[in-house]
Amino acid sequence: MKIGFYKLDEIDEATKMRLLRRGEADIDATIAQVKPIIENVRQNGDAALFDYAKKFDRADLKSLKVSDAEFEEARRTLDPKVKQAIDHAAGNVRKFHEAQMQRMEKDREWMVEIEEGVFAGEKVSPISSVGLYVPGGKNQYPSAVYMLGIPATLAGVPKIIITTPPRPDGTIGDALLYAAEISGVRDIYKAGGAQAVTAMAYGTQTIPAVHKVLGPGSPYVAAAKQLLSGIINPGMPAGPSDAIILCDESADPHNTILDVLNEAEHGPDSASLLVTHNEALAKHVHTELPNYINALLEPQKGWLTTNMASYSGVMLTNSMEDSIEFCNTYGAEHLLVKTKNSKETAKQIINAGEILMGETTPSSFGNYAIGVNHVLPTGGKAHSYSCTSIWDFLKRTSLANVTEKGFNNLRDTVTTLTDYEEFPAHGNVLRDRNIKS
Amino acid sequence: MKIGFYKLDEIDEATKMRLLRRGEADIDATIAQVKPIIENVRQNGDAALFDYAKKFDRADLKSLKVSDAEFEEARRTLDPKVKQAIDHAAGNVRKFHEAQMQRMEKDREWMVEIEEGVFAGEKVSPISSVGLYVPGGKNQYPSAVYMLGIPATLAGVPKIIITTPPRPDGTIGDALLYAAEISGVRDIYKAGGAQAVTAMAYGTQTIPAVHKVLGPGSPYVAAAKQLLSGIINPGMPAGPSDAIILCDESADPHNTILDVLNEAEHGPDSASLLVTHNEALAKHVHTELPNYINALLEPQKGWLTTNMASYSGVMLTNSMEDSIEFCNTYGAEHLLVKTKNSKETAKQIINAGEILMGETTPSSFGNYAIGVNHVLPTGGKAHSYSCTSIWDFLKRTSLANVTEKGFNNLRDTVTTLTDYEEFPAHGNVLRDRNIKS
Repeated sequence: MKIGFYKLDEIDEATKMRLLRRGEADIDATIAQVKPIIENVRQNGDAALFDYAKKFDRADLKSLKVSDAEFEEARRTLDPKVKQAIDHAAGNVRKFHEAQMQRMEKDREWMVEIEEGVFAGEKVSPISSVGLYVPGGKNQYPSAVYMLGIPATLAGVPKIIITTPPRPDGTIGDALLYAAEISGVRDIYKAGGAQAVTAMAYGTQTIPAVHKVLGPGSPYVAAAKQLLSGIINPGMPAGPSDAIILCDESADPHNTILDVLNEAEHGPDSASLLVTHNEALAKHVHTELPNYINALLEPQKGWLTTNMASYSGVMLTNSMEDSIEFCNTYGAEHLLVKTKNSKETAKQIINAGEILMGETTPSSFGNYAIGVNHVLPTGGKAHSYSCTSIWDFLKRTSLANVTEKGFNNLRDTVTTLTDYEEFPAHGNVLRDRNIKS
Repeated sequence: MKIGFYKLDEIDEATKMRLLRRGEADIDATIAQVKPIIENVRQNGDAALFDYAKKFDRADLKSLKVSDAEFEEARRTLDPKVKQAIDHAAGNVRKFHEAQMQRMEKDREWMVEIEEGVFAGEKVSPISSVGLYVPGGKNQYPSAVYMLGIPATLAGVPKIIITTPPRPDGTIGDALLYAAEISGVRDIYKAGGAQAVTAMAYGTQTIPAVHKVLGPGSPYVAAAKQLLSGIINPGMPAGPSDAIILCDESADPHNTILDVLNEAEHGPDSASLLVTHNEALAKHVHTELPNYINALLEPQKGWLTTNMASYSGVMLTNSMEDSIEFCNTYGAEHLLVKTKNSKETAKQIINAGEILMGETTPSSFGNYAIGVNHVLPTGGKAHSYSCTSIWDFLKRTSLANVTEKGFNNLRDTVTTLTDYEEFPAHGNVLRDRNIKS
C-alpha cells in the first residue's frame, strides 16, 4: 500500500499543487453532464424528478413530498438510542448557534452619525427562503439535517425546505426525518443531485423555488450550484472532505493515526495529512497506517488506499513554524492541533474552516456533537469562506438618513464627483432638488 | 417616448417576471465569449493581457503595473476641488466602515461552554489576498476604488490589488490613483474585463493570484467570475443597477422624477421604478418623465429611453401595504423611501441592498458620500446577499476544545451516530483513543 510521505522543503511544485488543490478539480468534469439535467427539470418539473429518482436512486416514487404519515412512522420506528444521541448532539448544535444569535442581536439594527445630519447604519434580516441539500441514498445523514436546519430556524428563515435522495424503496430514513422535525423543518422532498438543486432554483409543481441553496454534495450538486448561481445564491462551496492533523512530539502516535483516517474515510477523493516536524512521529504514522487501514472493511478500505496515494499521508517539515505556514497555505476544512500548547499554536492559524484543539478534541466530535457546524469550506476555500453559521441564513441591509443640514453638508462634494464620473442625473438629483424649508 | 406604467393588480405574469428579473439575463449570453479569454490568459499570462488591452481598450501598454511615477504625477495633476471631494466622501466611508470594525471587534474571538468540558467558539481573521475590480476606460470611477479599498484595508487584508481597464493613452485617471492611495492600495494593474478576472484567479508573470475578487463590472466580468468560482471566491454578484423609489402622497413630485432617473441613467439595462399607491403622483411622474429625459444629453438620454420601455417606469399599487409587499418581492439594490414617516415604512422592508430614508436622502448621496457602501446586490440578489461591508474581507473559523470530562460526556453519543451513518474510522477515533489520565 502506497502512503504519501512528503518533505516540505524537498517537494516538487506539481506535487505541492496536487496536495493543495486536492479533489476539487473533479467538479469541472461534471459540468457537461449536469447541463441536460438542469434543462430537463426546468422544462418538465416534477415529471423529470420522478424519472431521475427511478434512474439514479432506483426508486419508484408515488409522491415527491414526505407525508405526515411518514413523519409519524419515523417517530415510531426510530431506535431510542439513536433518538437520544440526536437529541444530545442537536441540542449542543442549538446551544452554539444560539450563542451566535445572541451576539448578532446587538447588531440587529444600528445607526451612527457620520457627520452633522448624516446618519448611516445597518439592519439584519433573515433570508426569506432557503433550500437545504442533504446527501443520502443508501446511507442516511441526520447530522447534516440538524447542522443546517437548526441555524436556519434560529435565524428566522420563514420558508425552509430540504431535498434529499430517497432510498430504493422510496423512503427517507427515520433518523433523518426525526432530525428534521426537531430542527423545525417539515417540508422534505425526495430528490437528489443536480436535479434537486435545479428544482429548488426554478421550482416545480411540487417543490417551491428558494433564494439560496446550502449544503454539501457530490460533484453533480456542486456543478449544478455553480451553473445556477445566476438564479440562486449557491452558498459556500463544499466539496470532498479534507483535514490536517498538526502535531509536535507531544501528540499520541496511535491516536494520530486514528485522526488521519477520520476525514480520509469519506471517499477516494478525500484528503487528510499529518503535518509535523517530528520525524519519529512522521515515520511511525507512515509505517503503521497500512495496518490500521487493512483492519477496516470495504468500501472505506478501498477509498483510503486510493487517497493515501494521492491527497493524503504525511507531511514532514523542518520546524513548527514551517508546519504552521504550510497549514495556513493549505487552508484545511478541519484542522486538529495536538501540540504542547494547542491553544497557543491555534492562535497562529489564520486559514481553516474549524480548529479543534487538543488530544481529547478529535474531528469526529466536531462532525457531530460539540455544537460547531460541520458544513465547512473545503479544498482551500477556507482562505476566503467562513464556517457555516447563522450568517448563512441572514443578510445585512445598509440604512441611511440625511437631514436638511446634512444635505447641505454633502451636496457640493457629491456634485463634484458626479460631474467627474459623468453621471448628469446623479448631479441633477441634488442641484435641482426642492428642499421644503 | 414609451415610459412603463404598470398597475400591480392588473399586471400579467410575463411582464412581472421581466420587471423582477430586469437586466440580469444578459450574463448567460456572454459565457461562451468569455471562455476563450479565460483560456488565453491562463495559457499566455501577461502577453494575453497586452493583446487584450490593445484589442478592447485600444491601449498600447508599456507596462501592466502602475508605476510610482504615475502615482506622483496623479497627485500633481489632480484638480484640488476633486481631491477635496474625494477626501470628504472617502472620509465618511472610512468612518462608517470603522463603525463596522468596532462592532466586529467584540466577536474577534470568543468561546462558550456548551456542556461540561465542551467549549465552542469562533475567531475572525482577514482574507489573505483580494483583488478589486474597478470598471473604467473612458470614464473613471474613483468612488468604486474607495468603496472597496477602504473596507479591505480596515479589515486588515495583507495583499490588496486593483485591476482596472486603461484609457486609450495607456494611463489611469489621476482621481482613481489618488483614491487608491488614500485607501491604502498601491498595487494597480491595467487590465479590464474577463481577462482581468482571469489574471487575478490564476496569476500571471506580473499580476499575483488572489483568493477573492470583488467589485461590479460588465456582463463579461460577471461571467468570468461565475466560470472561475471554483478557483476564486467571486464575491457578491453585482450586475446592472436597479432602484425603487417608494412614495406616498407626501413625496415631492419633481424630486421623485429626479430620483427615478438617478439609477436609471447607468445604462440601457438599468432598472428604476417609482412604486406608489398615489395615482396622482404616479400619473404626474409618468407624464413628466419624457420632458426630463429629453433635457439630458447622449448617451444617458438614449439609455433612459431604452430602459424606460423595458425595466423602468411607474408601478401603481392599491395601497401602501401592497407597495411594501412589492418592494420585498423585488429586492431592490437601492431603495429610497419617501413617505410621511419614512423610518417607520423602512422597518417593513426586509429585502433591499440599502434603504435610504426621506426626501433629503437621495440615492446619489449613498452612491458617494454618506459612508454606506455602494457595491450592492442587484437583480433581486438582495433576497440572499448583503451589502458590501468589512465582512466581505473577513472570514470566521470555528474553534473547539473538549476536556477529558467533555470527552466522556460526548463519546457514546457520537459513536452511536457514527455507527448509524456508517463511518467506522469516525467511531474508532473515539473508541480506540488513548486518554492519558
